[in-house]
Formats: sequence, C-alpha cells, structure tokens
Amino acid sequence: MSRFSLPQDAAFQALNTSLGFDQRLWPHDVAQSRAHVRMLAAQGIISDADRDEILGGLDTAAAELEAGSFPFRADDEDIHMAVERRVSELTGPAGGKLHTARSRNDQVITDLAMFTRAAAQGAIADLEQLRLVLLEVAERHLDWPVPGYTHLQRAQPVYLSHHLLAYFWMATRDIGRFEAVLRATSELPLGAGALAGVNFDTDRRMVAAELGFDGVVRNSVDAVSNRDFALDLLHALSVCATHLSRLGQEIVLWTSSEFGFMTLSDAWSSGSSIMPQKKNPDAAELLRGKAPRVWGHQAALHGVIHGLPLTYNKDLQEDKEHLFDAADTVALCIAAAGGMLETATFHRATMAAAASDQMIAAVDLADLLVKRGTPFREAHGVVAGLVREAVDSGRSLADVAIPALGDDAAAILEQSSWLESKVSEGGTALVRVREQLQQARALVG
Amino acid sequence: MSRFSLPQDAAFQALNTSLGFDQRLWPHDVAQSRAHVRMLAAQGIISDADRDEILGGLDTAAAELEAGSFPFRADDEDIHMAVERRVSELTGPAGGKLHTARSRNDQVITDLAMFTRAAAQGAIADLEQLRLVLLEVAERHLDWPVPGYTHLQRAQPVYLSHHLLAYFWMATRDIGRFEAVLRATSELPLGAGALAGVNFDTDRRMVAAELGFDGVVRNSVDAVSNRDFALDLLHALSVCATHLSRLGQEIVLWTSSEFGFMTLSDAWSSGSSIMPQKKNPDAAELLRGKAPRVWGHQAALHGVIHGLPLTYNKDLQEDKEHLFDAADTVALCIAAAGGMLETATFHRATMAAAASDQMIAAVDLADLLVKRGTPFREAHGVVAGLVREAVDSGRSLADVAIPALGDDAAAILEQSSWLESKVSEGGTALVRVREQLQQARALVG
Amino acid sequence: MSRFSLPQDAAFQALNTSLGFDQRLWPHDVAQSRAHVRMLAAQGIISDADRDEILGGLDTAAAELEAGSFPFRADDEDIHMAVERRVSELTGPAGGKLHTARSRNDQVITDLAMFTRAAAQGAIADLEQLRLVLLEVAERHLDWPVPGYTHLQRAQPVYLSHHLLAYFWMATRDIGRFEAVLRATSELPLGAGALAGVNFDTDRRMVAAELGFDGVVRNSVDAVSNRDFALDLLHALSVCATHLSRLGQEIVLWTSSEFGFMTLSDAWSSGSSIMPQKKNPDAAELLRGKAPRVWGHQAALHGVIHGLPLTYNKDLQEDKEHLFDAADTVALCIAAAGGMLETATFHRATMAAAASDQMIAAVDLADLLVKRGTPFREAHGVVAGLVREAVDSGRSLADVAIPALGDDAAAILEQSSWLESKVSEGGTALVRVREQLQQARALVG
Amino acid sequence: MSRFSLPQDAAFQALNTSLGFDQRLWPHDVAQSRAHVRMLAAQGIISDADRDEILGGLDTAAAELEAGSFPFRADDEDIHMAVERRVSELTGPAGGKLHTARSRNDQVITDLAMFTRAAAQGAIADLEQLRLVLLEVAERHLDWPVPGYTHLQRAQPVYLSHHLLAYFWMATRDIGRFEAVLRATSELPLGAGALAGVNFDTDRRMVAAELGFDGVVRNSVDAVSNRDFALDLLHALSVCATHLSRLGQEIVLWTSSEFGFMTLSDAWSSGSSIMPQKKNPDAAELLRGKAPRVWGHQAALHGVIHGLPLTYNKDLQEDKEHLFDAADTVALCIAAAGGMLETATFHRATMAAAASDQMIAAVDLADLLVKRGTPFREAHGVVAGLVREAVDSGRSLADVAIPALGDDAAAILEQSSWLESKVSEGGTALVRVREQLQQARALVG
Repeated sequence: MSRFSLPQDAAFQALNTSLGFDQRLWPHDVAQSRAHVRMLAAQGIISDADRDEILGGLDTAAAELEAGSFPFRADDEDIHMAVERRVSELTGPAGGKLHTARSRNDQVITDLAMFTRAAAQGAIADLEQLRLVLLEVAERHLDWPVPGYTHLQRAQPVYLSHHLLAYFWMATRDIGRFEAVLRATSELPLGAGALAGVNFDTDRRMVAAELGFDGVVRNSVDAVSNRDFALDLLHALSVCATHLSRLGQEIVLWTSSEFGFMTLSDAWSSGSSIMPQKKNPDAAELLRGKAPRVWGHQAALHGVIHGLPLTYNKDLQEDKEHLFDAADTVALCIAAAGGMLETATFHRATMAAAASDQMIAAVDLADLLVKRGTPFREAHGVVAGLVREAVDSGRSLADVAIPALGDDAAAILEQSSWLESKVSEGGTALVRVREQLQQARALVG
Repeated sequence: MSRFSLPQDAAFQALNTSLGFDQRLWPHDVAQSRAHVRMLAAQGIISDADRDEILGGLDTAAAELEAGSFPFRADDEDIHMAVERRVSELTGPAGGKLHTARSRNDQVITDLAMFTRAAAQGAIADLEQLRLVLLEVAERHLDWPVPGYTHLQRAQPVYLSHHLLAYFWMATRDIGRFEAVLRATSELPLGAGALAGVNFDTDRRMVAAELGFDGVVRNSVDAVSNRDFALDLLHALSVCATHLSRLGQEIVLWTSSEFGFMTLSDAWSSGSSIMPQKKNPDAAELLRGKAPRVWGHQAALHGVIHGLPLTYNKDLQEDKEHLFDAADTVALCIAAAGGMLETATFHRATMAAAASDQMIAAVDLADLLVKRGTPFREAHGVVAGLVREAVDSGRSLADVAIPALGDDAAAILEQSSWLESKVSEGGTALVRVREQLQQARALVG
Repeated sequence: MSRFSLPQDAAFQALNTSLGFDQRLWPHDVAQSRAHVRMLAAQGIISDADRDEILGGLDTAAAELEAGSFPFRADDEDIHMAVERRVSELTGPAGGKLHTARSRNDQVITDLAMFTRAAAQGAIADLEQLRLVLLEVAERHLDWPVPGYTHLQRAQPVYLSHHLLAYFWMATRDIGRFEAVLRATSELPLGAGALAGVNFDTDRRMVAAELGFDGVVRNSVDAVSNRDFALDLLHALSVCATHLSRLGQEIVLWTSSEFGFMTLSDAWSSGSSIMPQKKNPDAAELLRGKAPRVWGHQAALHGVIHGLPLTYNKDLQEDKEHLFDAADTVALCIAAAGGMLETATFHRATMAAAASDQMIAAVDLADLLVKRGTPFREAHGVVAGLVREAVDSGRSLADVAIPALGDDAAAILEQSSWLESKVSEGGTALVRVREQLQQARALVG
Repeated sequence: MSRFSLPQDAAFQALNTSLGFDQRLWPHDVAQSRAHVRMLAAQGIISDADRDEILGGLDTAAAELEAGSFPFRADDEDIHMAVERRVSELTGPAGGKLHTARSRNDQVITDLAMFTRAAAQGAIADLEQLRLVLLEVAERHLDWPVPGYTHLQRAQPVYLSHHLLAYFWMATRDIGRFEAVLRATSELPLGAGALAGVNFDTDRRMVAAELGFDGVVRNSVDAVSNRDFALDLLHALSVCATHLSRLGQEIVLWTSSEFGFMTLSDAWSSGSSIMPQKKNPDAAELLRGKAPRVWGHQAALHGVIHGLPLTYNKDLQEDKEHLFDAADTVALCIAAAGGMLETATFHRATMAAAASDQMIAAVDLADLLVKRGTPFREAHGVVAGLVREAVDSGRSLADVAIPALGDDAAAILEQSSWLESKVSEGGTALVRVREQLQQARALVG
C-alpha cells in the first residue's frame, strides 16, 4: 500500500528514474546488503534464518545481474529498489526485512562511496602503469636533445628524457590526489538512516569492517547530506585530465609536419574520409577535447549541491552521471596516453636540429659575461643587442657574438654545452636527469 | 586499401568511436545524402542511374535503421561511415560514388546543424505548450493573493496570476532564443569539402533548398570550423533550464509544510523507502538539479573549442554528447514543469493569510505620507520607526500606525487595497493583470 | 530612523558593499533619475519646483562624479544610495522625493540594462573595426597560398585571404549576437517598484522614451527577477572570446620557429627576463588565456541565478562583477586582435613552401580518377595505396603517382591547380574568394 | 638594450600588464629575493658585499611597499620587475646581479606557491574559528528539537545541536583539504631557471629551508609548468564555498516568516530602500551567491591550463586573479558565517512545534511493527495506508493509528521518543550527540 492514490505520470518517471545509470552500482549494493543483513542478525534484529534466506536471495540476484538475466521491471525506480524487490520475490517475507534499520538515503551514499573508492583505486593502477611507460620511454631517449619552449618559442634545449619526466611527476601528484580520495571515503555512511539515525541498536563498525571502511561517519545528518568525496574524485580526475590535455597538445604539435619530432604508430592514428594522405593524431586530440567534459562535470556538481539545504534532496541524484562519465573518460584517456607514448617513434635528428638553434644559447652567453663579473641585468642587455644586430643584419649569432665576446663564446655556442651546463638540482644536465630517474624508479619500485 | 600497415589499437577505438552516440543523427545523414546525390546527378557529376541506385540503397538503409535491423559492424567508426558502407554493400560501385565532392568534415557539421534546428524547433513547441499551461493556470487563479518575496522575506502581495505570468514572459524570451538558433543554422555547410571547397562544380543552393536551409555558408574554412550554433543552442537551453530551476525551487518551497501554498498531484510525487508519510516533490527538485548539467555542457563546449586552430580538429567530436544530453534534459524538464503546474492544487486560504501580514503594507503607509506631502525618504523613516515600535512592543502595526497616522492608515491596512493600488503599468492591480493576460493571449493565439 | 537597533557588523559590510564595483554605473543611474523625476513632475506626483531642484542636485552630483570629487561616505552601500544621499544633501527636502514611486530593485536592474546595452554597442563598434582590419589584411594577401590544416596536419592549401575571411564571418556572427543583446534590453524595467508595481499613476513609457527603450517590461515581478539580458551579453562575449582564442592559438603557432609563417610587430611582442633572444607573442597567448575567464563568468552567473525563487534576492548583486569583467576583458582582446593582425608580417615563401607539400594533393589525384569514372571510395583507396608506397619507399608522391596514373597527375601535382580547382561556392579558388570579399565589403560598407 | 626596435603598443600593455593585481605578492617576492641572494653569496656566485647591498636595497623597497610610497613606473610590467628595477636604482651595479641564476618563470611560480600556502594557512585559521562558533552554538542548543528535512519536507526530528554539528564536520573536512594544499606546496620551484635549470652551482635546498619549504621540485620543466597547487587551492576553496552556500540557504529559509526558526542580529541584517518593514538576510544570501564565483574561477583555470604545451606560456598569468579573488571571497564568507551564527537567536517553541508534527513519526510506527515481527517492507505499507487514511479523512495520525496499532503507538507519537530512539552510532539521541561533541572538542582542543 502506498499513501498515493494516483500512479506516477509517465513524464515524471522519465525524468525521475535513475535505473539506466545506477545499475552499475549493483556490486556495491549487493555487498553492502550482505554486510548489513549479517550485522542485523548479529545484533539480534533479525533471525539467523532470515539472514540466510536474504543472503541466498542476494546471491541469486547478483548472479542474475552478472549474467545480464536480472528481471528488471518497468517500475523499478533505481537499482536499490530493484534488488530489494527481487530479493523479496525470491525469499518471501524474509526479503521484506532487508531494509530494516536502513534508508535509501544512507544506502545510496554508501554505494556511491564504494564506487568512488573503486574508481580512485582504478585510476591509481592506471596511472602507475602510465608512469612505467613514461620511465621506460624516458630511459630509451635519455640524451636526445629537444628544444624546451616557453610561449611556444624555442627557449633552451633539454633532453627528451627530462621533458618526459615532467609528466612522470604530474602523474605522481595525480596518484596523490586519488589517494586523498581514498581517505575521503574511509568512513561508512550506512547506519545514518534517513537522516537521524535508526531506532535499532545497530553495529555500524561491524559493517564498516566487512566493507573495508576504517570507521563510521560520526553525524547522521552529515552522512546523508555529504557529497564531498564525489567532488574530491572529480577534482582528482579533472587535474589528471588537464595534465593529459597538455600531453595531447604536445603530441599534436610534435606530430605535425612543422615540428616533425614524433610519429605515432599506425595503431594510434586515423585516416581521412576524403584525403588519402592524412595520418591524424585523433587520440591525442581527444586527450585535449575530453578534459573539459571532466571539469564540466565538476562545475556542474558544485552547481547541483550549491544552496541545497540539508539533508537529502533529490537533486543529489545528479551526482552519479557526472561521476561515472568523468571516471570512465579519464580511464580511457590514461590508457590512450600510455598507448600512444609507448608505440611512438621520436626523430632524433629533427629534434636535435631544432635544439641547436644558436639563438637559444643567448642566456648562456649572458651568463658567460656574469661569470666575468658583469651584473646579469647588464649582461642581458649586451646579448640582447647582439641578437638584434644578428637579426637585423641577417647574420648568425656566432658571427656577431664571437668577435664581440671572444673565443669562450664559440665554445658556448656548441649545443651540448648548453645542456650540460644546467647543473643545478633538477636541471637538464645528464647527471641531474640520472638522479631524477633514480628517484622516479624508487617510487615505482 | 589504407595508407596504414597496422590495425587500430582497441584502446584507441574505444576512445575514438562515436557510433554509440552519433547514431541518432541517421535521419539527418540520410536526408543530406539524398539531397547531395540528387545534386550530383543534376550537375552531371554522377549519372542518373547511379543516383537512383544510391537513393535505393539509402531507402533500404533508412528502413533498417528505423526498424533497428541495420547491420552495424564493429569497425564502423561513426554513423556517417556506417551508412556509406551499407549503401556500398547494397549497391556495389554506385555506392562508392556517394562521397564524391563531399568530406566527412562538411557532412558531420551539416548533420549537426540539422539536429540543432530540430532540437530548437522541438524546444519551441514544448515551450508553447508550457505557455498555454501557464496562461490557463494563471486565469484559473486570477485574483488569488499570494505574498511576493524579496530575499525570501514577504515583501508585497501580488495575485497568483501575476506571479505565474512572470514565467510566461520567461518562456517567451526562451522561445526568442531558440528562434535565434534557427537563424544561426540557416546556412548550409555542405559543399565546403574537407576545408577548401571541392574540385567539382556543385550546386550548393540546390542542396540547401531541399534540406530547408535559406542559403549556404560563404567560406569553406569557416563552414567546417564553426560550432557557433551549437553554443547558441546550449545558451538557449541553459537559460531555459535556469528559469525552470527557479520554478522548481518555488514548487519545493510552496509544497513544504512551512509554506503550504501548493500540493502536487500524486502523479507528480514520490514516496520514501523508509518514511511512509513522505510525499516528495522529486520532479521539482530535478528541475533545480538538472540545470547545472546543461550549463556544465555549455562551459565544457567552450573549453573544447577554446584555442583550437582552424579548421576541423577531432576535439570537435565532443560537441555531440554535450548537445544531445542538454537538449534531452531540457525537453524532460519543460514537460515536467507543465505537468506539475497543470495538475497542482493551490491553497487559497493559506496564501491569502500569508499575504495579509500587515507588515507588508509598510510601503503603502509611507506612500500615504508621500501623498500628504512628506518626502519619500522621510516617510520611509517614519514608518520604519512605527515598525520598530510594533516589533519591540509586540503590538500589531495597525495598533501603532492608526493612532499615529490617522484613519486613512486603517483603510490601507486592509489587504485588497495593497494589491489594487499597484496601478502602474505592469503592476499587480487586476486591471493591469488583465491587460497582461490579453497581451499573452495575443502571443499564443 | 531605521527599524534596526544595532549598526551593521564590519565583516557584514565588507561582504555586502557593492560600491567598489557599482560606481561605474553612475552615468546610467543619474540618467535614469533625471528621466524618473521629469516623469514624476509631468504626472503631478511631485511639483515642478521639486523636479528642478532635484535635477540641479543631480547635475552637481554628476559633475562631482565625473571630476572624481564626489564625497563618498563610509556607509554608502552602493552607488544608488550614494547618489540619492548626495542629492538630498544638496537639495534638502526635495531630494527626499527622488525615490518616490521607485525601488532600488527596479532602479538597479534598469542601470544594469543600460550598462548592458552600452557594452553591446561598444563591442559592436570594436568588432566592426576588427572586420575592417581583417578585410584589409585579407586583400593585401589575396593570393598567398598557405596550408589549410585539419587535425593540425596539412590538409589542403588555401589562400591566406580565404583563411583570414573565416574570422571575418565569425566576427559578423558575433555582431549579430550583440545585436540580439540590444533587443533583449529594449524594454524598461523601471516602474516595477519593489516587485508589485507602485502606488502612483506613473508614465513608464515617457521614461522609456527618454532613456532610449522601445517599451516597458510587462510584468513587475519579472522585471525585478530577470537577468536574462546579462546572460545574453555573457553568451555573446563568451563566443567572441572563444573565437579570439582560436585566432590567438593560430598566431602562437604561426609565429613559432617551426611554422615561421608570421612575425609580430615589436610593438606587439615581449622579451624575456633572462633569455635575451626571446620574442614572445604574449598578446596572442592572452587571447587564448582570457577566454576561460569570460565563460567562467557565464557559468558562474548561471550558478548564481540557479534555484533562486522570485523576485529579487541579494545573490543577484553578483551579476555585476561577472558582467563588468567579462565586457572589459573582451574589449581588450578585440583591440589586441586587430592590433596584432594589422601590424604583423606574413612570410610568403615559407607559407608557399608548406602549401606545396605534394601529399596534400592526394584528394585531387583521387578526384582525377573520379572524373575518369572510378567511384570515389575506390579512387580514395588507390591513392592511399600510392601514398603508402611513397612513404614506405621514401620517394615523392609524384615519383609514384605519375607512372601509375599518367601525365594528368603531373599537372595536378603543381600547386596552383590545387587551389584554383576548388571552384565550388565558398571555396578557395580566387574567383570565389573575390566573391566573398565583395559580400564582406557590402556588409561593412 | 632590448632586442626590439619599437615600444610596446598601449593596447598591448593594457592587456599584458599584471602589476594591478600581482602587487600583493610583494612580501613573497622580497622574501624569496632575500633567500636567493644569500644563497648566491654562500655559493660564491656573488660577493658578500654585493649580497649586503642588495639586501639593503630590498629592505628599502619593502619599506616603501609597506608604506605605500614605492615609486612605481608606468613601464613596470609586474611586481617582480618593479622590485628588481627599484633595487637596481637603489644599489647600482649590485642590483643588476639579483637576477643571476634565476628567471621570472621560476620566480613567479615561487611567489605563487608562497601565496598559496599563506592563503591555505589563513583559511585553516578562519575555519578553526568557525568550528569554535559551531561548537559553542551547538552546546547552547543541545536539546532543542528541530525538524530534519529531506526534499525540504519534514522527515524526522533532530536536535539543533546535531544539525549544527553537521557543519562542524564539513568544516573539518575543509581544513583537511587546505592541509593537502600545504603539502602540495612543500617543494620549492625556485632554481629551475627559465625551464632547464641554471648555469650555476646553486644550493636550492638552502633557499628552500629559509623559505619554509621541505624540499625542491625535482624537475625544472615541471617546476615552471606546474599549476597543480593553484587548482588544489581552488578545489579546497570551492568545496568550502559550496558548504557555506548550504548554510546560507538554511539561514535564508529559517529566517523566513514561514519557517520562523531563527532571527539574525540587526548587525547582520539589511533594510530595504522602499519597504520600511523589511529585515533581509543579505549576508546569508551572499554565502549562496558567492559560491559560484569560486568554482567559476576553478573551471576557468582548468580552461586556461587546458591544452597548454609545456613549459611556461603567458596564459598562465591568468592564474593569479582567479586565485586571489577566490581566496578573498571565501575568507569574507567564513567570517560572515561565524558572525551570523554566533549572534543569531533561535526560536525554541517554533522549532519544537514544527518538529512535533505527528506525521514525521511514521517510520517509528513502522519500526514498532518490525519489532513485533512484521517485515519492514510490509510494515511500511501498513503505516502508509494509515497516513493515507488520515490525510483523506482529515484526522490526525494518532486518531487513525492508535486504534489500529494499539497503545504502544500512542507512546511513540510523543515527540521526545522519536528523538531519543535514534540510538545508533552517529544518531540524534542525546547520548550520541554528547559523544559527537566530545569528539569535536578533542579536535579543536
């Protein structure tokens, strides 16, 4: 019996139903129901016989969901109601006891916390894999010079290994952010009931232990109102996606005819419907193009929660699609980043030629003057003048600088010196890059 | 034969494929192919026999797509390739001529322009329906007083009809925004080829006329780079969703026990999994909660396009899911707004009681003084002092004001006078509301 | 006298004050007060003598604001209160009548509508200037070939004029969007009072006419709740900023050593604090980097309005900073786009060399086969095979294609033919570009 | 001498300058210059005499900046250049040595890291203060019943203390997020030079130690490209702002006439320009209305970084205004939240009356049946039927339920039993709330 005298309008159901997307929560939903029902029996709230019947019903429902044979009904509003309904069909009166001392409010947020943890764990595993690829590709190209850019202008040469390791450290910070998500989901919401706690002497810590939580949320109102961990996951995903968008951009640039630093494997390239010669870096472009949907979801979830009074409001149902799509998107993108990098070919000669543009040694010339005693700001001005003279007269920087600055300038205008002179900690000199590789290896050990 | 020697990586395909979401474009894709192939024959680029064979193939493919029996293949990258591939299977060499003088770049953007127009037309029809509901409900509650709020504090009473008509004018502006989308999609992109135009003397205006476009995009580079109309549609959808979120909020407030102005039909209400007494306004909450996903999509599409060099980049494939979900979401929300409003019950006595709070006549008392010659700013101070005296002493405003201001004040403290004195154009006096209703009726005529 | 017994907390005032940013509205505020007070006198609500005194006070206040000598007070909450307070100081009792038949709610939104119109008019003027620059630069480089790119891969050559004209059409659509903003602000909100209309027989159309509005908002509740035109302006600004971000990106790419298509004037370039040789395209990078703040403001304003019950809520004070910063930002960006383009130097030889890459003629070879009767899809495959053969064997496409396809292929592999064969309407053939220039000239005439 | 032959265009400078907003970084800029110059001398890169001269110049410049007498020049592009320029003016050649072994790229990001840490520390202090207020107000209202809401419908009563403590736990999680920001800024970027490291044997760890960093960024490319900590700060600020927006919403609701649970102090209230009776919760509305600008900044900064190739690009200058405004906004909001709460008055009788609505005991009646052996789902149906009968017949739930369920039902329909029966851990029973208060007290100890 319901308190309502009219069935729901079809347009209402179309708006309201979440079964289409929350189905994927079923493994978490079944797991929490198992733990819940064991606790209810342990506390004497239901009998052991009822517990066993319900567990049997849950096993059957889980098997059906796994097999794709679960008999969904048109009026199943969400996965939680569908599973409970099915267990009741399978077990009779016992199934009606499954929802004792529980509300959909604490049940939903518990499923979501479990999903969030699993998604964070998945992202960590994916990023660890990506770090291995980055390390391996960096080691393979340890001493290959490539221009470093600022403002997309050639600035100073670095080794390709050094450049690639920048992404290693980004991925490392990303992992740290996902680990924070694990901490943000370490307390079990279940047991908060609708919002005020429940009328039974439950043992929330028993449920927490079975489900792998470290403790329980300490305030029932907070438990069902809180979506912080969803925002934390979206933050971790957004920053990761933004990192990958930078990598995607660099692959797009480097595989262009103009740069010519890199060729993607045919396995990671697309053709054109009309231009037979085209070899397009579609996956790299999608690394760029997918990032905004991830932080678009993040902004949208802030919008959803914004101004909501406590405790549960239906608006919060919107958390799931934002979270699911963001997690799926980033998983695809991390895999693509690794796949492209490990199969790509870099072109040593082209990169080296670009990295040997004399102009990018200008700061080294200035530092030569500094070492001779000229204040840096003055030395900068002297070399800027030489650069202008070279540009205006169409001569090389060497032609202008060596007469002006002496033979030491000639030594400096040889490429390898520019790289190897960057000896400061964290710099691109090989000895420093090797240090970094060791630190990185230690982390992935 | 392809220029590639390796098949695409599965992870690449998972990232790259758009068939899962661009399938819904098939009616537009088939329609544009029909128009394209008729033009090719009319211009002598293909023979009439080839045209007829291709049209037959398109008919078959369309019938299969309609029936759900279209034989998709695992390597169909998108709906455009799937249809062309299927037509070739069905027709042999003739089908291979379908893509003559066309590129996927101009084909995709043409499909999207056609989808955008259809979505805008659909939204206009939905909003026209909503306006009729608003008018009808306003007329049914023409002279029912309700408090008007500022800062969620009771400010001045208005008639419920007047309040509801505010949403009528919002919907009217929304329709104007969707009409602007129709103008933004009035020029056909097809014929731009990959980006530079095509090597054939095509007749783009013939295609435009068949597909209902008013003209052709005048620059081929712009044609394949442009996503303005997608942003325009997202803008129209976002503003509409934001309007509906305000309506949703008001329904949530008005159906609360504290306000008690309104009861939703059982057909538009939800129960609770645990609390048997609950009657929840889920649909109204979702009007609120769905709005951020719409402008989340808008922000994300700006992010996608941001900083993209011309012309087509794969990132632009991201336009579709943002657009589709936003359009679907708003369609559900408009329907829900109308459904809730036309079946809701308003509670006249409760609203009237709230609207007769004497405090909300304070400005009318001040205006009484103004009409007697006191400058408004001074009159405001006098009445504020009376309000403070009433609040501090626990007396009614009448008890304090009538002795101070005379018997005219008593007349003013009767409710209907507050409403009927708002005689300025656009005000809530009944004569003005009736004017508005006439103007509104003229629009929906 | 106020109804309050305690002064406002300093922390409250720091949060609440808007004077720091709404000061710039003063010219609109004074103009509307002038029109309002003339109407009050014309309707006999105040005397002509009071009107003249108030107008005199407004003149003085305006002169002080213009001169920067306006005596602001610490407790001036906003510009509206400051001006009214000052007029009262200057005029005595007459000034206290200025706020008769008006509320800050309708006053604020009227100022904002006037600002919005002025901002839209300013943007239109700026964009018209930019279009002239684009036209002039296009005409100067009418027949300079440059590669057209898809996926940042060279795809097909176009003339630089054709490429630049794509931005002309973007700017033209932008102007259309700002014109829509003018229509969205064509109805005067003033006269709605706090929300319900006013207790006086005002003549809103007289005020509208003086202030340049075409009519009056027809519902007082809507008048003070509505922020649609602010969202419309943010939409127009966002799309414009996104367009400019694409231009910025292309300038960054084209001025890189790798592309080398373009050099910015020194007047539009920055140096480096450390690298004397650097010439950085900072302004172009900021065209990119400023766009997200514009649509960030748009998303934020949706967030502000989201879920707000009617009518005025203090949250709406947040409209102004979002709007002001967005309008200022785009004005700077349009000026920078024009400034960079009109002073930049393009490098004909470098562009032409890039545009003569034989590979980009592949589709033209395929079309040759089509004209000989081969279905396009098959022709595409044949040429893809030739491309692969050339790439694998390190030979030029000509070396492989001419033996296979005959001497016609040789003619096709000459650059100018690829450009001039794109004869379809809107294509890059010179005759078509000249058509476009004529259409463009007609628009700016 | 510069490499440029033309001065910068005024429109370029207007777009490019950051001095207007990056001035506030001066204390960090001076501090890092002091540490840098001490290290240069310690490593023998400059002389001790030069070090002392520069330190003296920095002292003077800092004193001028502190006093507001710093002589800025029109061509000071940013605070970094202004300080260096001033030191050179003050010290002669020695000042020209300040920028030795340093680039603006690593200098800027170091300033920003220092600002970020300071902002996070400030937010932690502000939130600790807010937690004290929350605890104090909770303790003052330990056993005051108030309805708990789901869907803004009365659901189950809780104690006001319990409700307020939900915000305590939110603030606690917020503090955790700001602590993560401190960890994200624990490595010094300075020493990375422009991007590749520097040509001098610097001691970065000495600088780190002086400035309070735990270590140094291990990759110079990453050091100048990274903006992760800015995104982390924006995340922490956004979630905090979203929390406060919920509090703001509840204050708006609770201070409405309809709820009547709460009155704000006059010191935290605003009046109306026209309605003398109005007492508006402006600060609470701004808690709502300010949140979107914070996560608007976050989305915008993702947009800025999105797709940027390594290393420094001018777009990154956009990080600062987003960060500064977000940090300032949240600081104002936290102060306002505390100020409003600690001075507000709650209305015990009104809250208690609302919390004693019999309908909200429906779940407790169902649980009575459960304890008698009825499966929960069936008990839910039985009570839903009683609710419907009561609603349809206009009787109280007691009138319907006691005859049906017996005298135990009467006991349950007394208010205090509903609160005290929620004995599960984290529930609202007083014993549990006291537990929570202890836990909370332990945290703020």
